[in-house]
Amino acid sequence: TRGGPEFRSTDGFFTFHPRGRLGFDYSTTHGSSYDDRNIAGTEAEALRLGAEGNIGAMGYKLDVDFVDGTTAVKDAYLSWDTRMFSLPVEFYLGNHLKDRSIEGSSTESRLPFMERNAVASVGAGVNGYYGLGGMVRVYGKNWHIGASITGDDLDNEGTANDSVMYAIRGTYAPIKTANGFVHLGAWYYYENLANDVTSINNVPRIAQHFNDNLRVSSSSISNPTQDEAYGYELGGAYHSFWSFAEYTKRTIDSADTDVSDRTGKSWSAGWLITGEKPGFSTRSGIWGTTKVLRPVTSGGIGAFEVAVRLDRYDFRDLPNGGTGRSTTVGVNWYLNDWARVMLDYVDWTTDNKVGSYKGLDDGNSIGLRALLSF
Amino acid sequence: TRGGPEFRSTDGFFTFHPRGRLGFDYSTTHGSSYDDRNIAGTEAEALRLGAEGNIGAMGYKLDVDFVDGTTAVKDAYLSWDTRMFSLPVEFYLGNHLKDRSIEGSSTESRLPFMERNAVASVGAGVNGYYGLGGMVRVYGKNWHIGASITGDDLDNEGTANDSVMYAIRGTYAPIKTANGFVHLGAWYYYENLANDVTSINNVPRIAQHFNDNLRVSSSSISNPTQDEAYGYELGGAYHSFWSFAEYTKRTIDSADTDVSDRTGKSWSAGWLITGEKPGFSTRSGIWGTTKVLRPVTSGGIGAFEVAVRLDRYDFRDLPNGGTGRSTTVGVNWYLNDWARVMLDYVDWTTDNKVGSYKGLDDGNSIGLRALLSF
Amino acid sequence: TRGGPEFRSTDGFFTFHPRGRLGFDYSTTHGSSYDDRNIAGTEAEALRLGAEGNIGAMGYKLDVDFVDGTTAVKDAYLSWDTRMFSLPVEFYLGNHLKDRSIEGSSTESRLPFMERNAVASVGAGVNGYYGLGGMVRVYGKNWHIGASITGDDLDNEGTANDSVMYAIRGTYAPIKTANGFVHLGAWYYYENLANDVTSINNVPRIAQHFNDNLRVSSSSISNPTQDEAYGYELGGAYHSFWSFAEYTKRTIDSADTDVSDRTGKSWSAGWLITGEKPGFSTRSGIWGTTKVLRPVTSGGIGAFEVAVRLDRYDFRDLPNGGTGRSTTVGVNWYLNDWARVMLDYVDWTTDNKVGSYKGLDDGNSIGLRALLSF
Repeated sequence: TRGGPEFRSTDGFFTFHPRGRLGFDYSTTHGSSYDDRNIAGTEAEALRLGAEGNIGAMGYKLDVDFVDGTTAVKDAYLSWDTRMFSLPVEFYLGNHLKDRSIEGSSTESRLPFMERNAVASVGAGVNGYYGLGGMVRVYGKNWHIGASITGDDLDNEGTANDSVMYAIRGTYAPIKTANGFVHLGAWYYYENLANDVTSINNVPRIAQHFNDNLRVSSSSISNPTQDEAYGYELGGAYHSFWSFAEYTKRTIDSADTDVSDRTGKSWSAGWLITGEKPGFSTRSGIWGTTKVLRPVTSGGIGAFEVAVRLDRYDFRDLPNGGTGRSTTVGVNWYLNDWARVMLDYVDWTTDNKVGSYKGLDDGNSIGLRALLSF
Repeated sequence: TRGGPEFRSTDGFFTFHPRGRLGFDYSTTHGSSYDDRNIAGTEAEALRLGAEGNIGAMGYKLDVDFVDGTTAVKDAYLSWDTRMFSLPVEFYLGNHLKDRSIEGSSTESRLPFMERNAVASVGAGVNGYYGLGGMVRVYGKNWHIGASITGDDLDNEGTANDSVMYAIRGTYAPIKTANGFVHLGAWYYYENLANDVTSINNVPRIAQHFNDNLRVSSSSISNPTQDEAYGYELGGAYHSFWSFAEYTKRTIDSADTDVSDRTGKSWSAGWLITGEKPGFSTRSGIWGTTKVLRPVTSGGIGAFEVAVRLDRYDFRDLPNGGTGRSTTVGVNWYLNDWARVMLDYVDWTTDNKVGSYKGLDDGNSIGLRALLSF
Repeated sequence: TRGGPEFRSTDGFFTFHPRGRLGFDYSTTHGSSYDDRNIAGTEAEALRLGAEGNIGAMGYKLDVDFVDGTTAVKDAYLSWDTRMFSLPVEFYLGNHLKDRSIEGSSTESRLPFMERNAVASVGAGVNGYYGLGGMVRVYGKNWHIGASITGDDLDNEGTANDSVMYAIRGTYAPIKTANGFVHLGAWYYYENLANDVTSINNVPRIAQHFNDNLRVSSSSISNPTQDEAYGYELGGAYHSFWSFAEYTKRTIDSADTDVSDRTGKSWSAGWLITGEKPGFSTRSGIWGTTKVLRPVTSGGIGAFEVAVRLDRYDFRDLPNGGTGRSTTVGVNWYLNDWARVMLDYVDWTTDNKVGSYKGLDDGNSIGLRALLSF
């Protein structure tokens, strides 16, 4: 039932699912006062091979991405499914997307837009979206709690102590019916930074991934000692309509400068014109598969969705911190449950105090993506 | 029916084919006046994992090569099969071998020699054999046309505009019977080079891939603005005999120097002693699988082929351009449809004007390859 | 019957086995006089994807590891199974673990400890555990001989001659019954070093892989010309008990300094408390799969093993050579035939004459590993 085959032993004890993802982008930017920002080009967004499977209650997953001639390990974990106090519990060991905000916890290929929102990028810790460690998820009927303790990324060197992040997130669906749901969520993490983290220089992209010059900038923070962030989530769906709002504030302590804050906000809404339901999992609070009613590969027209998102980046708590805001209008054509074509129009404004693109600058970027993920 | 299994859903809607390639080379060179050219050693030529499959009319392929401790993405595309004007049409999006010359369009593991010919290497554009973009192929009964628009390679950086190549190739088989065929082909591309292409320094190898010092050299061309190339193909097969001739001329414009030309010529012929037919696809104009009549893995003797190739490299249109010529005699032992052992004897001459190996120099290189590809 | 599925054509002619390995480590060190040695952290030990299969008598295997954001090809070979003089013979071409000492010849995921022993690391040649070339193994009823000729590693550059290693190993089981066995083994290699090997700087780790600062050091040997090593193996098993002793001496010739020796010794013993037999293959003289009687994934308690190992490193034949000794106590919990949790306590002492950690220094390292391998 998946795009890549899923193999099962007769008794269902063994399963094996080869995984693949191919994503190709075209991006073009106009209107910036800086020529180097008005660039266009193609790019592979994802080129992944992997494997996923189960041996009884034990599971495993390994995804490796090969874009840009490099090797980037994404999900790479062992898992164990069990029940405690009659609740389903999942344990993960390894590299797993952290439970942190809606779009930070969701795999990028399931999001309704080409890029993650401001909350996912501004609220990210030094250890990023992944981090090697342990995670547990407990599920109730209409809620879940996910907690993790993670060390450095997979590629850290063994010459110093790891930074350690303690993270927790809870989601709750007070209303959950056949016609829709209401989603509430909150999350928090604390990160104790090791000596080998000599600076924090988080400059999130504001339009398509292709364009490295479109970023909200801020001076690098030297000798950071610890940081923490929290966030809120509110949203819901009714039939084919959906909307979500997210907020985050990240606070960074440094041995050299004052404590500083950074905030990100995001609001989005969408409509599946062809009648599908939003592929949002109320159980885990993440974006999942959009089940297409009339797949193109079966002679149908596929699913069409229009969506809009507003993002706000605010780094002004530091003297050299910039701001950014963007409005994204997206049209998605889901060919089937595994393939989609995405068109994103992003109207963006940055007001940077440092870097190559200082001062108020605005423009628009158009992105086109073809994506297959199984 | 393939060396790696091909899995199909009962209705044939889903297919999945794990792919692999392993190639190991030994190469030794003698007779050069330069000690550094007379080197010997072993090398992995290909170490690939990948996946290929279909979801109805939609297809995908992803091949990654891991030789030399690096990651090189080869074929990586989404495809769509359809019919237009009652002709079969294939659309490709992503990274696909360009339709350019016989040996440039063929996957290396299907060629009758260990390395591609002079036409493939001299006629290659800045974006190389691959290039991220779109391709379409239309097939008639005895012809095909392939056209593509491609941007930079997969690993380009998003800080500048892409170079863009417009390429087209057509092949035609005026005679096509059970006993043989005649093949005609022609191709052309125009490449508009972006600012980040600051020089062209194409110095093709003239013997086995292992030996980095055996090259036809030329001074680097600074600030190239555009280039174009065309080529012709003529060949055919009769029973177990085959022969092909190819020619290419590439023209490079530069802001700094005069327009300059480079030409490559190649002629080859072969005989499958054990009676197999050449694995050449008249439909696509590329080398495909040699179907072995008596596979070694089924107790037979395999297929034996002897082949010869002449290659000419001419870069003399530029003051510092060298020339090269080589004669290759090859013996191929096809163990079955997926595995082969290749022995290539290359008698080469280079006359370089620049680089570490100036002046008339000649020698011979012997290469041995064991290859499995599924 | 494997954790990853093994697919077979109906007649058994084709087989295909997707491979995967995930290993995650936690390591912490205390007691060293040097703060930089007392570090703790997490690390991925193995993140592998691969494929293995057969086309009749022809086999292939390709394993690629993606730890630390890099690409490391491990096993990558073509093989052929046949009989000569009515004995089973296996030919390998490509990258294969050399037949050299018990723990050097065994894949790391099958060893009873987290790291290979002193004999494996001290006796390794410049070309390491792997090496591109040809290998043959002949099997008798209770013995085997393995011989190989290998060139440089897979990632060597083609600008110089390869170093070439000639290696041989034989094992013999004079006693081999249902209750146990006695194992005898010996091995030797000679390595002719090419000009591009300008120094030998072998500084083996003495505790967990994570800690790069815990090494036995020695001055680099410049301009080495050749080296050789030999080793002895003695061991056996009785019911659930096993014990092995190994010894090696490596001799390095240099154009600059005197011939120098390095020795390594190792003794280990273990007990599978839950009654399993040691997963040692008397046929090949390597560690294989421990067959778990009561797998956790089938509701059992798994297999438990306690083991101890003593290692000695002696580089004192050179003026600046250090010494090291370690005692490892390990507890292994085998969840099933593919997954295990390992706890290693290592009490170590180094006496280095060069490097950042000179003089007598001791401490202890605790390592924890979760490992899945199929």
